[in-house]
Amino acid sequence: MSAVPRQAVILAAGEGRRMGGNTPKPLLRVAGREILYRTFSQLRALGVERLVLVTQPRFREEFREFLSRHGFEAEIVLNPHPERGNGYSLYLAREAVEGRFVLVMGDHIYSEVFMERAIKGEGLVVDRSPKYVDLNEATKVVVREGRVADIGKGLSDPDGYDTGFFVLEEDVFEAAEELAREGDVIELSAVVKRAKAPVHEVSGEFWMDVDTPRDLRRARDILVKLAVKGTGDGLVSRLLNRRISTRISALLVDRVSPWQATWATFGVGILAAGLNFASPAAAAVLYQMSSILDGVDGEIARASLRTSPKGGWIDSILDRYVDISYLLSLALAFGVPASLWPVVALALLGSVLVSYSTERYRGAFGADMYERVPALSYLPGKRDERILLSMALVLAGLVRELFLVLALITHLRVALTVLLGSRNAERR
Amino acid sequence: MSAVPRQAVILAAGEGRRMGGNTPKPLLRVAGREILYRTFSQLRALGVERLVLVTQPRFREEFREFLSRHGFEAEIVLNPHPERGNGYSLYLAREAVEGRFVLVMGDHIYSEVFMERAIKGEGLVVDRSPKYVDLNEATKVVVREGRVADIGKGLSDPDGYDTGFFVLEEDVFEAAEELAREGDVIELSAVVKRAKAPVHEVSGEFWMDVDTPRDLRRARDILVKLAVKGTGDGLVSRLLNRRISTRISALLVDRVSPWQATWATFGVGILAAGLNFASPAAAAVLYQMSSILDGVDGEIARASLRTSPKGGWIDSILDRYVDISYLLSLALAFGVPASLWPVVALALLGSVLVSYSTERYRGAFGADMYERVPALSYLPGKRDERILLSMALVLAGLVRELFLVLALITHLRVALTVLLGSRNAERR
Repeated sequence: MSAVPRQAVILAAGEGRRMGGNTPKPLLRVAGREILYRTFSQLRALGVERLVLVTQPRFREEFREFLSRHGFEAEIVLNPHPERGNGYSLYLAREAVEGRFVLVMGDHIYSEVFMERAIKGEGLVVDRSPKYVDLNEATKVVVREGRVADIGKGLSDPDGYDTGFFVLEEDVFEAAEELAREGDVIELSAVVKRAKAPVHEVSGEFWMDVDTPRDLRRARDILVKLAVKGTGDGLVSRLLNRRISTRISALLVDRVSPWQATWATFGVGILAAGLNFASPAAAAVLYQMSSILDGVDGEIARASLRTSPKGGWIDSILDRYVDISYLLSLALAFGVPASLWPVVALALLGSVLVSYSTERYRGAFGADMYERVPALSYLPGKRDERILLSMALVLAGLVRELFLVLALITHLRVALTVLLGSRNAERR
Repeated sequence: MSAVPRQAVILAAGEGRRMGGNTPKPLLRVAGREILYRTFSQLRALGVERLVLVTQPRFREEFREFLSRHGFEAEIVLNPHPERGNGYSLYLAREAVEGRFVLVMGDHIYSEVFMERAIKGEGLVVDRSPKYVDLNEATKVVVREGRVADIGKGLSDPDGYDTGFFVLEEDVFEAAEELAREGDVIELSAVVKRAKAPVHEVSGEFWMDVDTPRDLRRARDILVKLAVKGTGDGLVSRLLNRRISTRISALLVDRVSPWQATWATFGVGILAAGLNFASPAAAAVLYQMSSILDGVDGEIARASLRTSPKGGWIDSILDRYVDISYLLSLALAFGVPASLWPVVALALLGSVLVSYSTERYRGAFGADMYERVPALSYLPGKRDERILLSMALVLAGLVRELFLVLALITHLRVALTVLLGSRNAERR
């Protein structure tokens, strides 16, 4: 495997006529972040240090303003003849790069997994089975002996599709120079074909190019869905809560910050607790709604690249206080007798200890417990499941039984967590 | 700074007559581990890959057995003439090493901090102000222009003391060879003086050589004291609990495993909880005793190099259950009325959430919260403080007040934890 390239050229000289408006496509926001912000952050996270941006003179100021706003450092290369094609833009970047480099289209969006795999390759990155792209619009590639044999939109029976992501060596500029001497317009596909670039396959991961406002919305929805943090989700989350929360997140991601979502969710939870004194049934439903909303802050944060340790930390503590408030106010509203209070206390403690035991694992082992001990994901008793159960039993009028069941399943779950975690630690 | 050496020579050919018994000194156990086990593990942890052990023929089998028992790989070099001095032992190791290497006395014990600092140096490591060594017995060093000018036990006005730890280059063997030609006995000090070895200072850290059974016991006591994990200790731990627990640990470290200590402490805690129904006063005292014992497992584990993530993880969960059991049984034994039960529940939850909030911080930030936010150490409400407070208030007959105070200080502490942690995260 070759070393990861340290420099990248981003082509952003296109007009983007189908988008309407005057903003260059790479500066359009998708899920709360400019497309270019995503590309730059991802490349930097993968070790790319030098960024070269090719654009046309009339976009220069807009890109400069973008760079300084986010504190990105990038060299801007101007293409005074964008009509000469994106191959010509690449050709103009030849002075700015040395040796191996990434070439990427400024109007393409890629998932982190895609980029991680793509940057390890060499040549044109192709996808044999694109999941998110309109195949009629996509550029097809025919591969012979691991290299580009033909490339174009009209090819039938292609071996894969051009993802707009390349890992190239300096010698590609020779092919570009030849083509520059032969004609006026130089398409990138022609350069790649002339250079007989090698082909590297990354199939099935998310990537797409943005041409229309509809593409933007689709990309947003996909990014939110990919932002679902898999580990730690219970059955209720997977089957119900996430299906609703991702829709809410898609609606909110361009308007609302993760912190706003965290505090709003906390507010709904506390409201549910208070509502116990007026209508336990309504409170139970609102509690379940807060459980659905609980996914939104994390989804927005991940989709818009705004995650922070602080966000995750405080969100967890607030969740514990919502649970405590709800169950305590339910017990008070229900007028629990002294004889049942120890069970209520155990139910409350259990709901905190389920989280404590898995979080303390991460502190001790430095690893996500659900990844290390996947069996744990199938044990019932996670927060999403407890809350739906609470709603169901409260609506059925079985409050006493709810506390009994909660006390039982939570502490049983902690015991099994300790057991499974210990066995796993010994096997290592 | 030079690269850390990849190989080490350990001199273990001495007779150790003052110890009594037939075991070579490096194989004597101090705080549950052979001296040589400590040296080998520490060197390996610092990146030393090749170990060369020089000993005399009659100890060969014992060292071989030691190596295979612990899975250490080391080359054994035999010195058939131990009476010719430790410089001769070094001389015999000349074929086994190449380039830069560590030279260390097999009967010396070093703290991890000492070794970490010493291995970065060059030449003889000296201590200008040894804290743990009998200065009359120690070898003195006179330094001129950063190099050994004179060395010996009888020197007056020394610049430092020989720690028995060296980082040497291959050329030291030339000095050893010269001395071998000149006489029969070669002391290491003479070799170092002849080679005009450079001097590297590491002062004030723990190191000592073991000559007598009394030394062994002293080393054990010091290792246990150094094994106190500073972060997270409350005032009560620092002033009271640790002073007692380290004495208990020193007595137990050669006999008891950390796991046995963990479970015994848990047993005492649960016993204290049960005792609430017979004598709340006795139970409160036993609860405080379990709090003192709670330090023992960690001290034994660290002093005997037996720490494990699993041990820390399970110990934490058991602590939570001891607290829950004690407070719940106290409330039941006291016959708490329904009106006070919400306070009892909050007191119980608070005791778990204090740990949850700091442990979840480690999970999110990958750092010890007490190290990142030292102010937190001075906030009251840690477990050691809560337990002493419980004992005091129960003995004073103020059970109702105890629950009120616990509920208040724990949740207040959580709130301040969130506040301080957030501010710290923003400053980074």
